[in-house]
Amino acid sequence: MKRFELLANTMADEIRSGRRLVGSRMPSLRQLTTQHGVSQSTVFRAYYLLEEWGLIRARERSGYYVAPGAALKQPLASKPPPALASARVEISDLVFSVLEAAKHPNVVPFGSAFPSPKLFPLQRLARSLAHSTRLISPWSTVVDLPPGNEQLRREISLRYMAMGIAQPMEELVVTNGALEALNLCLMAVTRPGDVVAIESPGFYAALQAIERLDLRAVEIPVDSVSGLDLEALAHAFETQPIRACWFMTNFQNPTGATMSQEKKKALVELLARHDVPLIEDDVYGELHHGAANPLPARVFDQKGLVMHCSSFSKTLAPGYRIGWVAAGRFAGKVQRLKLMTTLSASIPAQAGIADYLQHGGYDKHLRKLRGALRNQLDTMDAALHRWMPADSHWTRPSGGYFVWVRLPHHVDAMQLHRLAIENGISIAPGPIFSAQHAFRDHIRLNFGHPWDERTEQAVKTLCSLIKLSSQ
Amino acid sequence: MKRFELLANTMADEIRSGRRLVGSRMPSLRQLTTQHGVSQSTVFRAYYLLEEWGLIRARERSGYYVAPGAALKQPLASKPPPALASARVEISDLVFSVLEAAKHPNVVPFGSAFPSPKLFPLQRLARSLAHSTRLISPWSTVVDLPPGNEQLRREISLRYMAMGIAQPMEELVVTNGALEALNLCLMAVTRPGDVVAIESPGFYAALQAIERLDLRAVEIPVDSVSGLDLEALAHAFETQPIRACWFMTNFQNPTGATMSQEKKKALVELLARHDVPLIEDDVYGELHHGAANPLPARVFDQKGLVMHCSSFSKTLAPGYRIGWVAAGRFAGKVQRLKLMTTLSASIPAQAGIADYLQHGGYDKHLRKLRGALRNQLDTMDAALHRWMPADSHWTRPSGGYFVWVRLPHHVDAMQLHRLAIENGISIAPGPIFSAQHAFRDHIRLNFGHPWDERTEQAVKTLCSLIKLSSQ
Repeated sequence: MKRFELLANTMADEIRSGRRLVGSRMPSLRQLTTQHGVSQSTVFRAYYLLEEWGLIRARERSGYYVAPGAALKQPLASKPPPALASARVEISDLVFSVLEAAKHPNVVPFGSAFPSPKLFPLQRLARSLAHSTRLISPWSTVVDLPPGNEQLRREISLRYMAMGIAQPMEELVVTNGALEALNLCLMAVTRPGDVVAIESPGFYAALQAIERLDLRAVEIPVDSVSGLDLEALAHAFETQPIRACWFMTNFQNPTGATMSQEKKKALVELLARHDVPLIEDDVYGELHHGAANPLPARVFDQKGLVMHCSSFSKTLAPGYRIGWVAAGRFAGKVQRLKLMTTLSASIPAQAGIADYLQHGGYDKHLRKLRGALRNQLDTMDAALHRWMPADSHWTRPSGGYFVWVRLPHHVDAMQLHRLAIENGISIAPGPIFSAQHAFRDHIRLNFGHPWDERTEQAVKTLCSLIKLSSQ
Repeated sequence: MKRFELLANTMADEIRSGRRLVGSRMPSLRQLTTQHGVSQSTVFRAYYLLEEWGLIRARERSGYYVAPGAALKQPLASKPPPALASARVEISDLVFSVLEAAKHPNVVPFGSAFPSPKLFPLQRLARSLAHSTRLISPWSTVVDLPPGNEQLRREISLRYMAMGIAQPMEELVVTNGALEALNLCLMAVTRPGDVVAIESPGFYAALQAIERLDLRAVEIPVDSVSGLDLEALAHAFETQPIRACWFMTNFQNPTGATMSQEKKKALVELLARHDVPLIEDDVYGELHHGAANPLPARVFDQKGLVMHCSSFSKTLAPGYRIGWVAAGRFAGKVQRLKLMTTLSASIPAQAGIADYLQHGGYDKHLRKLRGALRNQLDTMDAALHRWMPADSHWTRPSGGYFVWVRLPHHVDAMQLHRLAIENGISIAPGPIFSAQHAFRDHIRLNFGHPWDERTEQAVKTLCSLIKLSSQ
């Protein structure tokens, strides 16, 4: 834990215990720098954290005050956790404030989690939906309970076959988007208190699910090029009672990293040795910019341990909420959990996508979409080269629609997030991708939206804000 | 706990501990009646229980044997629970076997949970879906996250207004059917280990949710005419740390009971005094057979404690999976849980139903549907009068599509369920509506399907089976 985090935690304790009263003024920068022998920047960053936790509020030109209700707020991370220790996470407030900011229609959506729906064949898909709904049998509404629409599962199964994977239809469960698939899988293989290995940085939904289900997270480092640190995972297996893993093997969110085939194979072998299931989130696999899909780790699984989750939300039909999981030996359990919690995915949406997959030209659309994303990455990359300060760095992923940017020294992603929003630009600040709120020097930028002058201007503005903040 | 349950539990322990080996023959009826001094019927019922738990299997003409894998099965109900004590429940196996049985297309669906989709305007609804999907803005797929499609929430809000309830749109969260609404509400107001008051008999989904979330259930008796036993609830509040209630106030499942307005008011006052939230499941409210909806308990709520859950699944669009909750003071929390677990309900399905509510003639359809259900109840009632043995009893609900039948003495609902399935008829046996697997002398019959000769014959057959079993 860094100095500013220690300082923030100390003051948070004082506030939560009621030793600092609601409405009372917090000490000035000068007081704290003298009292604790720390730099002004350390105090600043501590106050940013406290503000973010909802414990204090700034009043213009008069400093910080303890916020109403602060004494009741739960601690975010109770104790300084050693590296690789399992930790309870509480990330939701931060994530929701960021997501909310990215929703406003006038904001440039660099912080968005979705590509532009303008890249999708929504009219063609609407025709498939209308056509299939007219033909739908009334009985399907009673019979198409989990595992889901049979035609849709057959089409999905064929797509696995095209990847060289013999995927039994019986193990496919159709869900409300990949998000539900991931959540059901996690529920299927854990009990409250269990330890789950996740990526750091990683998809915030994993953190939220772990928080919601009272699990404990072990964060495994992800390299922004080669992906998951397998040695760290092997070490974690030796030292922690890990019950499940939740990883993205292709175009990882947020880094864009893809594990090599050798590494995926080694990962599956490691899991098999320890008999630990993998929840494989592969929602970006189809969005490669090259010639062919990188294969998922699922390919190497002989024991039914890998639950391969994906969806049509990032590639075809964001609002239809149709995803699936090839759940291996856990299919029965996942199916039951689905029955108990949301019964089934929307039946017209399932039938509509099944019809589109048969007749709509999905592969042609995917080729076009991949080309568009590749071009947009080139443009984003060029714009960043033009305006980013020298001591920054960003990835150039071979798929998906995110770049992961390391900010120059001294620039704080949370502060930048607030400044950017004031300037009509959303970004995804690093801390939302970590249980420890780490990666304060990183942001994730979405290039999944067609480029225009406004986008160009937004990159320029963002880079100016970064330069200003680094001075 | 009754004698046969005690006997079953004793033998279950012997099997699970391995003292009785897999494949070994169980003692004969005669041996047990002599050994334990109990009646043959007690031994029979104990063996039915053990069979149901998957611990023993019958071989024709040679008695019962310990089933493969029996030693590994978890106990269903570990200790004899005193009346009103909170209990962990494990009901799912039973429920799923019953649901699965009701799905087969050739089976007469008296055990089904849905009315016939033939009673719904599926073609008109498909037109609304096609129309609205063509007009849908690409951005709605990103912006229509929870709380959900605005037009749909406005239409739902107007329907509350017609009931005299000023329901702020902001508190409405659109969900994947009422089932998700109920589950999210329960998650929003409980933590693992908490005690929840539910109905007995009651909707099995409540039992499943309680099991899944590691909660404990207190079962409050429901009278099949007047509904919930308020005195028992008041007593439970005094003796148990109840954190939430989950009740159906109108046309309760399975009894069909509706609480009077006075009783609903008293219930809400009781909840307010103890500051305990109510999850009000009101999916059948619109299906009254009389002149007007019975109002929900939500009407009397001044404190935002009542989360009123409903859906279009039982009245209009079973497969669309669109429900909602008016979640009062818990709306924000429910909305976040929705975002974290399934993100949003299917957007075309939301837009399609919104369009139908505006232009499709929902109220006219509902009037027709109510008339059909009332007629089908008359026919079912007449058929039961014709063929049921004298010492049975059934309800005549004023809404919904279930009758709750008390079987003659000695007839076991689980045994009847198996016999009925062999004869191509599904029923819902009483034990699936209880954490303790009680109500073995009750079954629920669905009259929500248009009557024909096959239905008539099925009632006759079922009644013959009942007569045979009671001899």
